[in-house]
Amino acid sequence: MSKQDLGELRGTIDQLNLDILKLINERTGVIQEIGKLKEKQGVNRYDPVREREMLNVLKKVNHGPLPDGILEQVFKSIFMSALEVQQDEQKNALLV
Amino acid sequence: MSKQDLGELRGTIDQLNLDILKLINERTGVIQEIGKLKEKQGVNRYDPVREREMLNVLKKVNHGPLPDGILEQVFKSIFMSALEVQQDEQKNALLV
Repeated sequence: MSKQDLGELRGTIDQLNLDILKLINERTGVIQEIGKLKEKQGVNRYDPVREREMLNVLKKVNHGPLPDGILEQVFKSIFMSALEVQQDEQKNALLV
Repeated sequence: MSKQDLGELRGTIDQLNLDILKLINERTGVIQEIGKLKEKQGVNRYDPVREREMLNVLKKVNHGPLPDGILEQVFKSIFMSALEVQQDEQKNALLV
């Protein structure tokens, strides 16, 4: 292995990390908007049926190399992150 | 809230989910290549120092709405997923 090979591959990973972060932040922003709409309606923000549907769609289109089981773990962590952001906001609002 | 608003926002989420999945699969593929290079060298695939460096870079460029603490949780799950894929492959290779 030349150091250059490893360096190039790591550079690709660094860029992918940034691209993934950008999309997850975008996703979090949209979930916040959905949360506000639901709040107006007094509807619960957490919707396990919708989560299950999203996971099913993702597993259907997934061609790997990520196996479906690990896909599910990662996306549950992404889904959970958006909920946690909203819970933090509510907590902070109560502290004001 | 009109149903259309919620529908549109959910459509955006569906597209972002697919884009994120695409990037995570790309990332997994590159990590597999790095794993093969490291295997040739007999170097351990798991590199906690590199993981910490990647997290530091991501937190440095992060402008939210994802807070750094939750960013760290999500990316640890993404980093772990790539390692698990390689462990599965090694297990399968031993079973052949």
